[in-house]
Amino acid sequence: MILAKVYVTLKKGVLDPQGKTVKHALNSLGFAGLEDVRIGKYMEVTLDEKSPEAARKAVTSMCEKLLANTVIEDYRVEVES
Amino acid sequence: MILAKVYVTLKKGVLDPQGKTVKHALNSLGFAGLEDVRIGKYMEVTLDEKSPEAARKAVTSMCEKLLANTVIEDYRVEVES
Repeated sequence: MILAKVYVTLKKGVLDPQGKTVKHALNSLGFAGLEDVRIGKYMEVTLDEKSPEAARKAVTSMCEKLLANTVIEDYRVEVES
Repeated sequence: MILAKVYVTLKKGVLDPQGKTVKHALNSLGFAGLEDVRIGKYMEVTLDEKSPEAARKAVTSMCEKLLANTVIEDYRVEVES
């Protein structure tokens, strides 16, 4: 069993209205000195697989096909055995 | 300027319908051997702050007050200087 962690973030330059809203909400709550808030996704995929390399390959393919919108998002895959 | 990375995940035992849906979608796309998919949030908070300790304290407070729903979610804060 292999656990793969996937981090999906908006590419630099892509507007993040959700992050902006959260930033304003934090300001309203009294948090000062906030420069920026960017929001992404974090996914944990557990695979019934023995080889970390095969798992990484499979999860990268999942990112390309479904988990990330590669037009506007970057992704990073971390594999633990 | 300090970058804090926040990981918000559903607590163990809390149902994750979004993760279940993604798992089924991946199965439909032909990915076999998936055990589980859990979906969380990843946030990058940039603070105008000098001390990493103060930044961690501020971001932890943000998590408690807004970024995470501590009834059903866990959070982890990583601070880089």
